[in-house]
Amino acid sequence: MTQSGDFNIVPFVSVDNMMKLVLHLGPERVMTDLADYIEADFRRWESFDKTPRVASHSDVGVIELMPTSDGEMYGFKYVNGHPKNTREGLQTVTAFGLLAEVDTGYPILLTEMTILTALRTAAMSALAAKHLAPRGATTMAMIGNGAQAEFQALAFKAICGVTHLRLYDVDSVATRKCETNLAGSGLNLTACANAEEAMEGAEIITTCTADKQLATILTDNMVGSGVHINAVGGDCPGKTELHRDILLRSSIFVEYPPQTRIEGEIQQLDRNHPVTELWQVITGRAMGRTDARQITLFDSVGFAIEDFSALRYIHDQLQVLPYSEPLDMIADPDDPRDLYGMLLRAKAKAA
Amino acid sequence: MTQSGDFNIVPFVSVDNMMKLVLHLGPERVMTDLADYIEADFRRWESFDKTPRVASHSDVGVIELMPTSDGEMYGFKYVNGHPKNTREGLQTVTAFGLLAEVDTGYPILLTEMTILTALRTAAMSALAAKHLAPRGATTMAMIGNGAQAEFQALAFKAICGVTHLRLYDVDSVATRKCETNLAGSGLNLTACANAEEAMEGAEIITTCTADKQLATILTDNMVGSGVHINAVGGDCPGKTELHRDILLRSSIFVEYPPQTRIEGEIQQLDRNHPVTELWQVITGRAMGRTDARQITLFDSVGFAIEDFSALRYIHDQLQVLPYSEPLDMIADPDDPRDLYGMLLRAKAKAA
Repeated sequence: MTQSGDFNIVPFVSVDNMMKLVLHLGPERVMTDLADYIEADFRRWESFDKTPRVASHSDVGVIELMPTSDGEMYGFKYVNGHPKNTREGLQTVTAFGLLAEVDTGYPILLTEMTILTALRTAAMSALAAKHLAPRGATTMAMIGNGAQAEFQALAFKAICGVTHLRLYDVDSVATRKCETNLAGSGLNLTACANAEEAMEGAEIITTCTADKQLATILTDNMVGSGVHINAVGGDCPGKTELHRDILLRSSIFVEYPPQTRIEGEIQQLDRNHPVTELWQVITGRAMGRTDARQITLFDSVGFAIEDFSALRYIHDQLQVLPYSEPLDMIADPDDPRDLYGMLLRAKAKAA
Repeated sequence: MTQSGDFNIVPFVSVDNMMKLVLHLGPERVMTDLADYIEADFRRWESFDKTPRVASHSDVGVIELMPTSDGEMYGFKYVNGHPKNTREGLQTVTAFGLLAEVDTGYPILLTEMTILTALRTAAMSALAAKHLAPRGATTMAMIGNGAQAEFQALAFKAICGVTHLRLYDVDSVATRKCETNLAGSGLNLTACANAEEAMEGAEIITTCTADKQLATILTDNMVGSGVHINAVGGDCPGKTELHRDILLRSSIFVEYPPQTRIEGEIQQLDRNHPVTELWQVITGRAMGRTDARQITLFDSVGFAIEDFSALRYIHDQLQVLPYSEPLDMIADPDDPRDLYGMLLRAKAKAA
């Protein structure tokens, strides 16, 4: 039974507080924790209320709501994707999210999720690679050196033991930014002149580019046997990064097929093309990598349960860390049926 | 082209500021304005991206997301419905909402919507009655005297010219609360011992109860010819207020059939039972009331466009009124591709 008078207050994590929280714990620790939270939620995959995200498309981008619930808590994320934003000095992807109690419907956390999405996306990628990449992989090619790149790099370092990073971007300024930001991270960095060069000796290939179009960042002849491909950038209808022939040679792992078939690399394939759900690999119901020569592909699009895990993680951290502020978001009259009376009393008080 | 450095800031209207805004303008003025905004948006109904709300149901309630867009702006509302909350001292319905630019995906307004939903629901009801109720109606029966009652009463006074209100609730405490709150409103109030008595002489009947069950607030023999019924309380699967026979005698008007057939009173009827979309009445494409003896029924469930109108209204008001505070919600690095670098710079600054 809930009683107190503080139900109008929702803890809010601003961008500033999210940065403080991440810096306090350290990005590698946060992403390792996030991978643990995601893994725990993927293990109880069947207990979640799942739905493909609700997307509102326009000519220049998309705005999406991604809700899910485990029956005790309900979470959703608002996220946009506007590739042209970068040219206007804005983020391609911005996000915020909310966690609520299913029992009352009352919100218990509102948080920025632009930074948190970058962290959870990288944590998810590294978690998939932990289960799929060739054993002992230490070198990763990083094609696309934009806003997500450093997070991917540090997650693969912390979670998969990657030590060498081979960077390439069509814009060398992005690569230099990445090198600068990762100097002192302990990663061994090599800037490459093209994608082929970046892939030399790489056991893991991460593609993370942002154009909203059918692109071919990797062609078939570029990809040798035995690698793990972490395809992050293709995440909406009409936006892919890999040539179809690579997909046909790969064992494909996805988050949630009804969403990935619309948004992922596999939108290029037949609706019935076999894919494996990652949660089944994590729970041991399906095989991951079975052969050293096999190409494994994680066709990442980002699913609501990962955001739920991230919200749950931040909510747990706030039980002990001070990085939130109170937001007066829920009207809470003393008598719940007397919403109008609350207005009248506010008027009397002001008079 | 957007340039400034303030894109990280989203104006936030707290509960406190919403009350200040409503008291500054006056509730009747706000609801009259809201009805105008809703009417304007219903006139351009076809330009909206429409989808039934995305609902997450549990044994005790529902949490919903209601998105829509007119191609220039995107809005959504988070709203819960938990009838048992009242017994725990909590609101049955709480809500907040967001407005964003379609062109960039960036939020431009976050606001409490518990109070705003109460205002827009009443404005919507009165707008429908303006088009459907018998000409010159001045007496309204108000069955259910909970959190929504005073808003309905004042909206019908301001928008439809109602002067006499006949109140009934199974709980007489709610009726007394309503009388107290509406004393001095200029409405002539009569507390009634039962629903039949409340309906004596009423040309408009508003039902607004909150149980999540198939209830029968009104039975067929209670409803005479020529009245307008404003059925507000039946708004989710399994929750209705009117006996099916009343529906069969009525001309039924709805907001958005795909949603109302699931959530409204008409969930009791055949899927093909004829209903009229209110926007078509407002634009003159369909007939409203055609006969003085006709029973018109507005089967109100609340639709996303009404929330969009309300968000748009608050956003417009904030151009001249000071009732918002800045929320640091959007990560906005100087170089949009340098999200990680923003973290590093925050670290350097803190050191």
